Amino acid sequence: MSRTGVWILGARGGVATTMIVGALALKHGLAESTGLITSTDLFDGVPLAGVDDLIFGGHDVRTTSLPECAREISCATGTLHPALLAAIEPDLAEIETHLRTGVLHHSGHAIETLAGVDVSAGETDPGAAVARIVTDLEEFGREQKIDRLVVVNLASTEPQIKDHPAHHSVDGLEQALKDGDGTAFIASSLYAIAAARVGAAFLNFTPSPGALLPSIARLLEEAGSPFMGSDGKTGETLVKSALAPMFRYRNLRVLSWQGYNMLGDRDGEVLAHDENRKTKIDSKDNLLHEYLGYPLHSKVAIDYVPSLDDWKTAWDFIHFEGFLGVKMSLQFTWQGCDSILAAPLVIDMVRLLDLAQRRGDKGAQSHLALFFKSPHGVKDHDLHRQFHALTQYLEACRGE
Amino acid sequence: MSRTGVWILGARGGVATTMIVGALALKHGLAESTGLITSTDLFDGVPLAGVDDLIFGGHDVRTTSLPECAREISCATGTLHPALLAAIEPDLAEIETHLRTGVLHHSGHAIETLAGVDVSAGETDPGAAVARIVTDLEEFGREQKIDRLVVVNLASTEPQIKDHPAHHSVDGLEQALKDGDGTAFIASSLYAIAAARVGAAFLNFTPSPGALLPSIARLLEEAGSPFMGSDGKTGETLVKSALAPMFRYRNLRVLSWQGYNMLGDRDGEVLAHDENRKTKIDSKDNLLHEYLGYPLHSKVAIDYVPSLDDWKTAWDFIHFEGFLGVKMSLQFTWQGCDSILAAPLVIDMVRLLDLAQRRGDKGAQSHLALFFKSPHGVKDHDLHRQFHALTQYLEACRGE
Amino acid sequence: MSRTGVWILGARGGVATTMIVGALALKHGLAESTGLITSTDLFDGVPLAGVDDLIFGGHDVRTTSLPECAREISCATGTLHPALLAAIEPDLAEIETHLRTGVLHHSGHAIETLAGVDVSAGETDPGAAVARIVTDLEEFGREQKIDRLVVVNLASTEPQIKDHPAHHSVDGLEQALKDGDGTAFIASSLYAIAAARVGAAFLNFTPSPGALLPSIARLLEEAGSPFMGSDGKTGETLVKSALAPMFRYRNLRVLSWQGYNMLGDRDGEVLAHDENRKTKIDSKDNLLHEYLGYPLHSKVAIDYVPSLDDWKTAWDFIHFEGFLGVKMSLQFTWQGCDSILAAPLVIDMVRLLDLAQRRGDKGAQSHLALFFKSPHGVKDHDLHRQFHALTQYLEACRGE
Amino acid sequence: MSRTGVWILGARGGVATTMIVGALALKHGLAESTGLITSTDLFDGVPLAGVDDLIFGGHDVRTTSLPECAREISCATGTLHPALLAAIEPDLAEIETHLRTGVLHHSGHAIETLAGVDVSAGETDPGAAVARIVTDLEEFGREQKIDRLVVVNLASTEPQIKDHPAHHSVDGLEQALKDGDGTAFIASSLYAIAAARVGAAFLNFTPSPGALLPSIARLLEEAGSPFMGSDGKTGETLVKSALAPMFRYRNLRVLSWQGYNMLGDRDGEVLAHDENRKTKIDSKDNLLHEYLGYPLHSKVAIDYVPSLDDWKTAWDFIHFEGFLGVKMSLQFTWQGCDSILAAPLVIDMVRLLDLAQRRGDKGAQSHLALFFKSPHGVKDHDLHRQFHALTQYLEACRGE
Repeated sequence: MSRTGVWILGARGGVATTMIVGALALKHGLAESTGLITSTDLFDGVPLAGVDDLIFGGHDVRTTSLPECAREISCATGTLHPALLAAIEPDLAEIETHLRTGVLHHSGHAIETLAGVDVSAGETDPGAAVARIVTDLEEFGREQKIDRLVVVNLASTEPQIKDHPAHHSVDGLEQALKDGDGTAFIASSLYAIAAARVGAAFLNFTPSPGALLPSIARLLEEAGSPFMGSDGKTGETLVKSALAPMFRYRNLRVLSWQGYNMLGDRDGEVLAHDENRKTKIDSKDNLLHEYLGYPLHSKVAIDYVPSLDDWKTAWDFIHFEGFLGVKMSLQFTWQGCDSILAAPLVIDMVRLLDLAQRRGDKGAQSHLALFFKSPHGVKDHDLHRQFHALTQYLEACRGE
Repeated sequence: MSRTGVWILGARGGVATTMIVGALALKHGLAESTGLITSTDLFDGVPLAGVDDLIFGGHDVRTTSLPECAREISCATGTLHPALLAAIEPDLAEIETHLRTGVLHHSGHAIETLAGVDVSAGETDPGAAVARIVTDLEEFGREQKIDRLVVVNLASTEPQIKDHPAHHSVDGLEQALKDGDGTAFIASSLYAIAAARVGAAFLNFTPSPGALLPSIARLLEEAGSPFMGSDGKTGETLVKSALAPMFRYRNLRVLSWQGYNMLGDRDGEVLAHDENRKTKIDSKDNLLHEYLGYPLHSKVAIDYVPSLDDWKTAWDFIHFEGFLGVKMSLQFTWQGCDSILAAPLVIDMVRLLDLAQRRGDKGAQSHLALFFKSPHGVKDHDLHRQFHALTQYLEACRGE
Repeated sequence: MSRTGVWILGARGGVATTMIVGALALKHGLAESTGLITSTDLFDGVPLAGVDDLIFGGHDVRTTSLPECAREISCATGTLHPALLAAIEPDLAEIETHLRTGVLHHSGHAIETLAGVDVSAGETDPGAAVARIVTDLEEFGREQKIDRLVVVNLASTEPQIKDHPAHHSVDGLEQALKDGDGTAFIASSLYAIAAARVGAAFLNFTPSPGALLPSIARLLEEAGSPFMGSDGKTGETLVKSALAPMFRYRNLRVLSWQGYNMLGDRDGEVLAHDENRKTKIDSKDNLLHEYLGYPLHSKVAIDYVPSLDDWKTAWDFIHFEGFLGVKMSLQFTWQGCDSILAAPLVIDMVRLLDLAQRRGDKGAQSHLALFFKSPHGVKDHDLHRQFHALTQYLEACRGE
Repeated sequence: MSRTGVWILGARGGVATTMIVGALALKHGLAESTGLITSTDLFDGVPLAGVDDLIFGGHDVRTTSLPECAREISCATGTLHPALLAAIEPDLAEIETHLRTGVLHHSGHAIETLAGVDVSAGETDPGAAVARIVTDLEEFGREQKIDRLVVVNLASTEPQIKDHPAHHSVDGLEQALKDGDGTAFIASSLYAIAAARVGAAFLNFTPSPGALLPSIARLLEEAGSPFMGSDGKTGETLVKSALAPMFRYRNLRVLSWQGYNMLGDRDGEVLAHDENRKTKIDSKDNLLHEYLGYPLHSKVAIDYVPSLDDWKTAWDFIHFEGFLGVKMSLQFTWQGCDSILAAPLVIDMVRLLDLAQRRGDKGAQSHLALFFKSPHGVKDHDLHRQFHALTQYLEACRGE
């Protein structure tokens, strides 16, 4: 039995906490594997790491302890049952000892002013920050005797980052680090660079564009690291990518597609800031135009509605034209708990990136496109073709 | 330029009238081809008959004239613009001269009591009815100099039909006809038998189970006729078959799927009768259980709401379970005009069945499964895999 | 400080348990009074009993203990927090000692086959059953030293009851009891008769028509008992009665009003039985026709969807006609927890019936119409005028 | 039979055209009075002007002719049937001869750049503009032999107007006119001042705040003119004002009320401009806070979705808290044709303002509050109490 380290950026956030609680629940036989695709018979014969074999650690800029974060979620959304939390309390406390203070680096006003954030954490020199992260990762690997490491970005959405030569070549990147040029990077960049330094797999589950800049993707590939991103496809966009093909199959012309999203958790609070929201909306809106291939009126709005906590509610209105120019409509309301939807996807991808490491796959893992709103290097947003790509990959894995 | 005859059962109904008006509008350049998949670049290089080359005729038990039917639809739903009807009035009047009185044969109380139905049309002897239909089809073919014929069932949904030996073998079928055993068949059976007699392709766009009984399917195949059915997938069920895979891709467990359909046209009036509705609901509900592969609570309700006319409105509520047993939901409201959605599918399939005839394909055309709620002989209800099957067929056609 | 007894029929059901837990939570300062209208400043100066002054007891045919019922609800719907239940456990256990075995009397197949029902409870002689109930009520009053008693029917919806002379006069009623004529009554009738015998106020919160038969209403009035019913207006019907006036204020003509209700608790399980559902649907559907005053197409459907537990979800589609005959629509989705909505209404009415007793009011309390789908003796279904009637009553109380 | 002049500002817009077509349809017996509350038995015995007695004229800055405007609406939304337009064509052409070029005065970029606007129409001197309007009104009155005049503002929503001493006293207003101070007013102000000059009643059906500035309201009152505004309550806000009381009646606490509005007509195009939308949103959003009386999270969004034309579609999500802190929700989708909803309200109010003139009522007509989102001088947003105020006024009228 080998040990796979899972190092989480944003380890005290809603998705991370839910994922850790869920993995522990599965380990103790206190929950079923609903939501985890890697636990279905689709993966029969594919040599994945067990959920039991995952060892968690991570960075966070917040100071609340992990067990406390879990209790907060339990109160706010009711998704983590008090009895479950009681049963796994010792495990949570143990994982808490693996957590380290994260880096803040141009993370934006929204993140830096969140309650409970330790702002003293911000190094001004990017190279020093990378070095500190590398030290944390190596220490975790050594102490926990892990065989392979997957670094997972679950931190809040960062603002857009201004173009810089360091984004376009590995040389430019290394030069900026050497120069201590703080304007070249954002926190997620530094984490990803550190992942490359230690040869870890890297998963950008957030839309933050600083994590998988062209130069960083190249750096990871050169380091032999498999990686994928960006922006987990958990709710409204998932439905969108399942429905859009239907209109194409019938040659029904979409005239307008309006999507209104409401959410109330810390993620929503951060997205209430224009600079952070812009990053997210671009990621959600591209899909339709790229997929349908003709101009249409579309909008993606994201509103912060505190009373919803982690219950994301979205209403989409699709106005379309059929035969003889007749206009018709489809509307849907999605009501899902964001962390509950995201957490199993992260576990799924951790297992698949761990598998990739063992197979010696490196670079962007395009067969994971179905999990993302903006799949790195993949233009096809058809959920069904994305799923087909995964099944073909699994076929290949089985054949080995 | 060859001529393809399109013989419609229920030629004065909403779908038929809309299809004929639409085809004429396309011929005269008065409408775009939105809704017709056979007019997209997906079919580039596939030698389909032009919409201009379709020659319409048909049977109906109602006595209202075709131009009058078109005006009624225009008033009730607004989908056929008065200016368009004025422009194609002569063509409609010409097609009206091709229409013949249909057969009523155990068609059920709902259909027989519709306003304007000529109940004298009911032969009691099934063989005599088949002979009369054959005569009508041959006369149409001769007078219109058609090269190939597609018979299309667009008549109202019939009741379920009681099992009979005539349903299970061609011998049993021929025997029942010889014996004049009126209990063996229902009107749609007789039409399909007549189609086989004249070697026409046959399309069962309705859910009526009498049309493609095992023995009739065999008879058509032996006659060299390509055929397909049943029950065009135009609205709520289409959305269902696009969405259900999404839940599988994420291992989200569907707990309940409730579908409430409302419609107000003649079709709805017929479906308000329990015996006819049962046929339809079975067709709509099977899909989920077969596709998802586990037991779930589901319901399909169909209600007659006269004020909606042809505007089918459906609300579906999908209750599903995710990670850690958390329950979430998706609901959608579909508001579509049934005839406008169905008419182009019929034209699409007429062109594809005409192509099949020219290629010498016979029997069930499984690549047309994506158009049906209950695709004949096809168990896979995944809309996306069904679409894939069509594209593979087109690939093959192009290669010839 | 006086003591008001609250005797609940169906004391272990979802509404009753939630009400008792809620009242205890208020007493211990563990909850706010949201949902209770009697705790708003609308009632300033009106001498209501305190929620603390309510003493609970009751009948039930199920054998599960009250604390266990509360835990079941907590698991199924998450509405009663484990920490709250732990805090009031001793109080619940104390109330459990006040509960007595209920009567089953033509209660219908649905109720009699519910899990955990003690069917031995059914006396065949109605007079004997009444006598037993009276004994239980008197004992409760004596032991708990209560000053006034309100009997509240929260039991499952009973089937319709066949007409009988005992329904139309007090003499007929007494004669049937004397004759031991079991066919004249249903369980709820017997409870209401017993309430009259001991001079208690009576509240029929269910739609069960047997509780407030004309003869029983007369009997209560003669006994000096204030009473009201039937069928608490908690969700979809509440919205209906708030919206229907809007269409009248604008002379917008409602063409169709379709209401689809889904629920999954024990109440839903009972309503899945045709005989019980009929009772409920009549109560929900009357309102529109009576209020709007013209014929319209309407439907109320109730479906049992077990996965919803107590979360009632309803979708209403309202099709209406405006100026120049243009058709438009309004649709709404209501997602509410039934017990949470019903429980505070019951407390509100218990306090108001207790007030009526002290004021010497007897007979139907029409100012409580706003709480009911089928307000006894009140034809006006306009929620706003019903609310006005309550405020006028309170004005009168204050003036005394 | 007396003649009531109706002078419309924005006479070629959607609401105005629909109102004129509708009034003509009623006059010729080609339509029913659905949507008109003044034609219901609520007004029995109230001496209103007949719809036949209304004589239409007006100003507009667009140059398209009235019959052409009607045909445009017919094509875009289907609400005005071609056959109806053909039947009333001569009447429309006659009314077209009563239309005059409107004034543009700080009307904002959005309005001034609309297709077909005659921008030469803008006088720079406000006094000269008022004089020109007065001349047009007097000429209309003389030529059409009208007995009483109602000026109705149906022009596009103007931007907010900057505070100015001319807004606060009649003296200040007159001084600014004398000084030719163009910054004091906006087009709608000038129209309202002109209405006061000729003693006409004035109706501000738009949210434009320049029309009923304090000084103008005073001027109208001094002139003996009855008036009312602002912002006709036709759709989403109407539903809001019908539903909000329901939450109060049950002491259910509204946590969040999000309203998303989409519309695609010229009105929507104007509202897509931030400065104009701000005016509208303020008008729609105030209601909840004022009515519910406690802080809640709310949002009103308005998006321009061209494919919808005049079909306003709104989705509201109401998140509320009930007993024991349980959160529940109500959502509704409103799909209405804006002009069809607004036109009859305007006719209703024209008749009621005409009645007020005959009765000698002057100043703000608060009994018309139920027709407005921001009723002038009325704080109570409860639709039901507003309706009650109207019925009391009618009672008084009948008693005379």
